[in-house]
Amino acid sequence: MYQELLGFLNQASTMQQSYKLKASPLSEKYLLELKFPGNGDNIADADRLRQALETQIGCPVSIPLELLREIPEKLRQNDWKVTVTIGYYWPPGWGLERLVAELVEVGPGSDRLGPFGLAVDLGSTTVGGYLWDLGSGKLLAADGVTNAQTRLGEDILTRIHYAATPQGLAELQQLAIMSINRIIDLVTKQANIVPQDITAGVISGNTTMVHLLLGLPTANICRNPYVPVVNAPGFFPAAMIGLDLHPRALVYLLPSVGSYVGGDILAGILASGMHRQKEVSLLADIGTNGEMVLGNREWLVVAAGAAGPALEGGVVACGMRAEPGAVCQVRIDPDTGKVTYRTIEDVPARGICGSGIVDAIAQALQAGIINQRGELREPLTSLVVVPAEESATGHPIELTAVDIQRLLRTKAAANAIMATLLESVGCTFADLKYFYAAGAFGDHLDIESAITIGLYPDLPRENIIRLGNSSGTGASLVLTDINKAQELEEISRRVTYLEMNNSQQFMAHFTAGLFFPHTDLDLFPTVKARLKH
Amino acid sequence: MYQELLGFLNQASTMQQSYKLKASPLSEKYLLELKFPGNGDNIADADRLRQALETQIGCPVSIPLELLREIPEKLRQNDWKVTVTIGYYWPPGWGLERLVAELVEVGPGSDRLGPFGLAVDLGSTTVGGYLWDLGSGKLLAADGVTNAQTRLGEDILTRIHYAATPQGLAELQQLAIMSINRIIDLVTKQANIVPQDITAGVISGNTTMVHLLLGLPTANICRNPYVPVVNAPGFFPAAMIGLDLHPRALVYLLPSVGSYVGGDILAGILASGMHRQKEVSLLADIGTNGEMVLGNREWLVVAAGAAGPALEGGVVACGMRAEPGAVCQVRIDPDTGKVTYRTIEDVPARGICGSGIVDAIAQALQAGIINQRGELREPLTSLVVVPAEESATGHPIELTAVDIQRLLRTKAAANAIMATLLESVGCTFADLKYFYAAGAFGDHLDIESAITIGLYPDLPRENIIRLGNSSGTGASLVLTDINKAQELEEISRRVTYLEMNNSQQFMAHFTAGLFFPHTDLDLFPTVKARLKH
Repeated sequence: MYQELLGFLNQASTMQQSYKLKASPLSEKYLLELKFPGNGDNIADADRLRQALETQIGCPVSIPLELLREIPEKLRQNDWKVTVTIGYYWPPGWGLERLVAELVEVGPGSDRLGPFGLAVDLGSTTVGGYLWDLGSGKLLAADGVTNAQTRLGEDILTRIHYAATPQGLAELQQLAIMSINRIIDLVTKQANIVPQDITAGVISGNTTMVHLLLGLPTANICRNPYVPVVNAPGFFPAAMIGLDLHPRALVYLLPSVGSYVGGDILAGILASGMHRQKEVSLLADIGTNGEMVLGNREWLVVAAGAAGPALEGGVVACGMRAEPGAVCQVRIDPDTGKVTYRTIEDVPARGICGSGIVDAIAQALQAGIINQRGELREPLTSLVVVPAEESATGHPIELTAVDIQRLLRTKAAANAIMATLLESVGCTFADLKYFYAAGAFGDHLDIESAITIGLYPDLPRENIIRLGNSSGTGASLVLTDINKAQELEEISRRVTYLEMNNSQQFMAHFTAGLFFPHTDLDLFPTVKARLKH
Repeated sequence: MYQELLGFLNQASTMQQSYKLKASPLSEKYLLELKFPGNGDNIADADRLRQALETQIGCPVSIPLELLREIPEKLRQNDWKVTVTIGYYWPPGWGLERLVAELVEVGPGSDRLGPFGLAVDLGSTTVGGYLWDLGSGKLLAADGVTNAQTRLGEDILTRIHYAATPQGLAELQQLAIMSINRIIDLVTKQANIVPQDITAGVISGNTTMVHLLLGLPTANICRNPYVPVVNAPGFFPAAMIGLDLHPRALVYLLPSVGSYVGGDILAGILASGMHRQKEVSLLADIGTNGEMVLGNREWLVVAAGAAGPALEGGVVACGMRAEPGAVCQVRIDPDTGKVTYRTIEDVPARGICGSGIVDAIAQALQAGIINQRGELREPLTSLVVVPAEESATGHPIELTAVDIQRLLRTKAAANAIMATLLESVGCTFADLKYFYAAGAFGDHLDIESAITIGLYPDLPRENIIRLGNSSGTGASLVLTDINKAQELEEISRRVTYLEMNNSQQFMAHFTAGLFFPHTDLDLFPTVKARLKH
């Protein structure tokens, strides 16, 4: 967890530096110095406040009934000088010209703190939260917790099946709510505010996670023709969806494009900026379910949910998540064949995580311990990374021949998705300018190793960009800038989904990718040069 | 109650004939035949429905969370052919270009009934309800009940004071809700539907009544500078304000202009149509609290809440409401002085109601039993309408000298308001083209008698128009035609309120009015001619 937290904080601070906030977050505070009512000016309290606010912000203001009840006393207590907190919303798909400001709170005129907003990456494994001071544009705290739903199933499909059992959906919904509320508790304590101070929220998640959070049935998501209940759920008051923020805080659920293209992917596109560039980029979240986006400012094609077994964790026998004791770095001396390694937090090795696996394969390839077909040099039966006597388990941490073949297939699947995407728009690898590596996995991977085994394209290294948690970054962008929210809805209208499962091209490219780095070595010129040494 | 009911039904049927409904009520039903999802068309269920509907109606559709949960099953159960019921709303003051349609219900494609809507006149004494079939534009039922709040106080001021006591506001709120729910029960049973079938509501009431219904504090309404909590409360789901309609039915509270100019007055203006006419009209609701509106399509001036004691009920010792046993018609033979009368439902007389009082004074004046100063002919000490032996009480039903003087003062107050209003805009009685008599009182009053005593202006009789319950009519117009709702909001922006209480002119005109029909007999030429006979 500590490692994850560090990851979140690092990503968050990077984000803070690289995006300048404009003064249009989803929640704002305004100081209103109202005229005292008097003879000839006896407009009603709420309308006086509403009209003063509408004049300032230029869009309709709606006032919830509970606040109507409190406004007369609040105005008089504070001598008609109040600070109002508003939250913006709009009908999904109708844009900023349909913007409405909902009055969330009325406080004393001296109130200058915040407003505060929470961006959430509702991942199926980890839930990340980012607490922003929307007034100053500063990130106050960030943290991550394991999604409590994992106790009912690691993968999405298991949860979809569980949701179809009696009370299953309600249980999963409660666990999602609980996970977010845990994050809220953590980040507000860190920032020394209370949850009720948070007056806007943005949640980014894949389509299934958003459905489970809202208690929407998920059965049709995994059933042909893969139809979700809703792509654009829009805004809900926090109290309505069980979140521990200000009860009237409006929470925006990022839209999705379909069952396989969730708001998390759209948030990633937004965070990368690829949708605004002339050049063609590829965005890949290879760590978990191999989502990829190819596109530029004119078109965007997404492939998702078809990458085969994930690289992180379970693909190899000794695999584990990036937690303390996981081998995360491997070096092999090409002359002596001697293996050195590092583990997370430098404790005795318990297993090997994604970045360690990629490193091990790349180094073994360069040392001639495995060949380009992924076969171990005779008479080896496995690539031992940590001998039994050094490991915490008493068993060697190793990659077997079967493990390596599995990895080769996963890598080939990634190649095949990229190639099929490129082909679908009439491009080749040569047209690719930038490669965005999203997710925690992409953050820790050694780029050279990833290129060496053919997982990343062989681009100039400065054009390979780590995005970190792009889903959380995208959610934060939307939270802190209403124009980014609009941009994300535009992205959702431009994205095309390319189905891989039934694709002939995919199978052809898959076969061509069953080679480290690839059967067509010319696609990887720097690797070709290196391997020829 | 029967008499009231008859009154409501009569007015309602008149209304039905005189206003052609357009196909834009506040709730509508649409049959949607959606395309089945399939390969290449796997947009989410709710978005499929939303987009199909938005294409038809041309404005954003919002879908409540509870409906999102039900939509997948409802679409599949009904083979993608469903009837959706929507309710329109807009941010108060922002007009139709900001219209949003909220999805209220999704039902089978075969559902062709309704939709149904309820217009409510939330009077301080009587609550009237009008149940409309918004699909066919037909009035299905109308009824009235006594406002249950009357048990806590007959007049508004008593209730405002009661609302300031602990739990007082909550109690008055519950009684208002209860009264409306009683009406809902009555009209739905009459029309053989259930309350949940009603998917839109419009409530017209004076400013205080609307505040009490919403549980808003009323203390500042009766305190200088007379500031309500809200003039434009807008729309609320029925469940939120405790009304027994479809829980998601949107209920529109008509806006008010101030503490003394409620939505009921604006509804009256709307019902009269005076705001669209070139000629100057006067609208008067003399029965209860003497509200008057003077204006045309360019300007509207309102005087309200300053008419002194009401004519209905309590102003004379033998006075009673227009209920069975009330003398409602009086004739006096000018030669013999013989009094004949009629009572409501022709049962023995228990008292005299407003129309009976006005008749009695007018007839006595013409018979020379009272003079133009309101003095009884010597040696009479009272005007006996029903001798003791004929009455149900065993006492005579009579108007005493004090009663008559009270009435003269009430009449003079009405004259003074009219004259002050006219003067405020530089008009005279000669400029007046139409006179609209609003309220149940105006409905039963004999027009000749009202002119004879100087209560109504002496206009050509065809220019004196009875509006009936103009508040209920206005609410029905808004419910059945969204353009009328906009028109009413425009009226609210055009209305000016003229304060009478501190007016010097008012006092001068009041003095001039202390004469039947008036000190200036030339203002009442037909009466002048008749009295000279």
